[in-house]
Amino acid sequence: MPPNPEQLLLELFTVFVSAKVVGEAFERLRLPSVLGEVLAGIVLGPYALGWIRPSNIVYSLAEVGAIFVLFSAGLEISPRDLARVGNKAMQVAVAGVVLPFLLGFAYMKLRGDGSSEAVFVGAAMVATSVAITARVLADLRMLSTRTAQIILGAAVFDDILGMLLLAVVAGLAHGGGPRWAHLLILAGEATAFALFMMFAAPRIVRTIEPGVEQLSTQNASFIVALAICLLFSWLAATIGMAAIIGAFFAGLVFADYAPRWNLAPRVTGITEFLAPFFFFTIGARLNLKTFTGDVLLAAIVVSLLAIVSKIIGCGAPLLGEGWPNVFRVGVGMVPRGEVALIVALVGLESGIVLQSTYAIVVFMTAVTTLIAPPVLRYLFKGEIAPTHQSPRAAQVQL
Amino acid sequence: MPPNPEQLLLELFTVFVSAKVVGEAFERLRLPSVLGEVLAGIVLGPYALGWIRPSNIVYSLAEVGAIFVLFSAGLEISPRDLARVGNKAMQVAVAGVVLPFLLGFAYMKLRGDGSSEAVFVGAAMVATSVAITARVLADLRMLSTRTAQIILGAAVFDDILGMLLLAVVAGLAHGGGPRWAHLLILAGEATAFALFMMFAAPRIVRTIEPGVEQLSTQNASFIVALAICLLFSWLAATIGMAAIIGAFFAGLVFADYAPRWNLAPRVTGITEFLAPFFFFTIGARLNLKTFTGDVLLAAIVVSLLAIVSKIIGCGAPLLGEGWPNVFRVGVGMVPRGEVALIVALVGLESGIVLQSTYAIVVFMTAVTTLIAPPVLRYLFKGEIAPTHQSPRAAQVQL
Repeated sequence: MPPNPEQLLLELFTVFVSAKVVGEAFERLRLPSVLGEVLAGIVLGPYALGWIRPSNIVYSLAEVGAIFVLFSAGLEISPRDLARVGNKAMQVAVAGVVLPFLLGFAYMKLRGDGSSEAVFVGAAMVATSVAITARVLADLRMLSTRTAQIILGAAVFDDILGMLLLAVVAGLAHGGGPRWAHLLILAGEATAFALFMMFAAPRIVRTIEPGVEQLSTQNASFIVALAICLLFSWLAATIGMAAIIGAFFAGLVFADYAPRWNLAPRVTGITEFLAPFFFFTIGARLNLKTFTGDVLLAAIVVSLLAIVSKIIGCGAPLLGEGWPNVFRVGVGMVPRGEVALIVALVGLESGIVLQSTYAIVVFMTAVTTLIAPPVLRYLFKGEIAPTHQSPRAAQVQL
Repeated sequence: MPPNPEQLLLELFTVFVSAKVVGEAFERLRLPSVLGEVLAGIVLGPYALGWIRPSNIVYSLAEVGAIFVLFSAGLEISPRDLARVGNKAMQVAVAGVVLPFLLGFAYMKLRGDGSSEAVFVGAAMVATSVAITARVLADLRMLSTRTAQIILGAAVFDDILGMLLLAVVAGLAHGGGPRWAHLLILAGEATAFALFMMFAAPRIVRTIEPGVEQLSTQNASFIVALAICLLFSWLAATIGMAAIIGAFFAGLVFADYAPRWNLAPRVTGITEFLAPFFFFTIGARLNLKTFTGDVLLAAIVVSLLAIVSKIIGCGAPLLGEGWPNVFRVGVGMVPRGEVALIVALVGLESGIVLQSTYAIVVFMTAVTTLIAPPVLRYLFKGEIAPTHQSPRAAQVQL
């Protein structure tokens, strides 16, 4: 039986409104609203005030919300533009994966932890949360800039690399060591998925396009785009990657059709409705009380390493493009989010890491998530935002 | 913990796509797509093939979907237009409540059932499912016609009357007879709610409007409209009415602002995404196998009475406006939906009715839901649809 509609609606209303009210307060303080939405979750959520304990329904809406945040972000990027930044984005991603992993691994070993704990913390430090960065860049109307597209492209590549590392961690948990066969299969799947999305999927959509425009269903093109977004998200989740990667690729596939099919306002409607549930639950999962002196110190060091390693690793490939771009890309890659939390959860549930290591990863996720948006906003201040143009119009002018 | 994203996405994809595919097939057969979406639920749902057993998440999305179907419907109707048809709509509603209730009650008594069973079947025959009619009228681009507005207005009034009858039924279940004090309170609440929505709410929105337009949040007016839709839906559910009544009133309140705030495409985006879950679950709740000879006969008679009583009761007040309008309004009021199913559920769960009586009500809901849309479509065929105009533009010309 479905839940009581009264309870369901009260929960949806309180989560939605509290996230948006704190978001509005942050906007007025010149901080990104997404930060306020996360803070609402931290403060009102189960680990602090405990006024709102999100139900499974809200966590599910949050998952769907994350998918639409990435679908919207993908819609704003034309595949041609991503291909143009693809080489640079790949360099950014690889350097930004290797450095955080090595620094995290080395620090945990120096601290006296075992190899499993060290590998686990290193893996959690890898994957950038593209949803948060994408939202900040959208708030700033910067999604169509080259810098933003390098960040989003690199975040896509490094989510895939992060998933591979997660497979190693999960392998450690099950067999005492990484299962190389499984790892190889996953790496092959991820590569094939990315290649399919970049090259085959746009052709398929081009082929079905005349058929879509002859369907009798109202808003048929929008319905087809939604169905394919759900399909690609499920496919990505099924082969062991994050669902949001599939959603992002689905957005890329439809980016060229967005203006003609008028997809943007309708997808925006869904994203605006569901995204606050995603950001609220990111906050609601953080327990600030598990930190004692020793754990807190390690958490602070790991957080600093997570920040510095991404800025250096991801910024370095852009040294030829001026310091502002080095720092914009570096800081844009700093926030860790859902992937780090999934790694943390896998480690804890399979018993290969201690509660304290789990707390360190959660703290690092919180710090990087909270610190990147205001700095990112500051760094992009110099750039003139195309305020009175739609993002698509700005993109055409690039 | 949230559900497995892989499972969640597979379920969302299969429900969404199967509903839309059968809907498209129906459109091509010149039948309303909503009928196909319901049929997908019946056939694939747990009571027939059993390929898709909707989870609580899908039932919750369905509840939210019903809210957005009504919110969208409300947005298309200006309160001034509803006030203009209010008197006629009220006559249609009252006659369309009294006649089905009396006929249902009388038939069940003649059949030899007890008073509780008879009251219960009568109550379930009362409330029109405005969601289905609204969707059919929207598909036909007829929402802005006077006939459509009488139907929607009458459905609003008769949902309120249906809720009062539900209170009587619930009262019978608890105390052995209707609790008049409770009934009186509920009647007062419902009346106060309707008056507040018709007269006070638009003034409040007019007052806060300048503030809304100065908010820093992106798409602030849309966010405020969503928040108020959730609030009104929750309020309606809390005082014992159907949540969708609150959503419909919220739509009415914002109807005047929809063009300026560009609400329609963004709300449409949410509705198009969530409505298929609502219509699919309407189908998935129907168990066609509980019908044996005797029950089937009673179910057919009750269904016929449900159809005839609404056509006569609701059509009669329009005798002065020509036969086509008599039948359009009469048939438009025929489909019973969520309210009848809620009445059925209350009766079954509280033990005042037998399984067979429950099955009769579910059958009647199915028949009226399935039969009305094609007939409605046929009856509206003569009217010239303003195909190349937006519904708002058509409304302005009325």
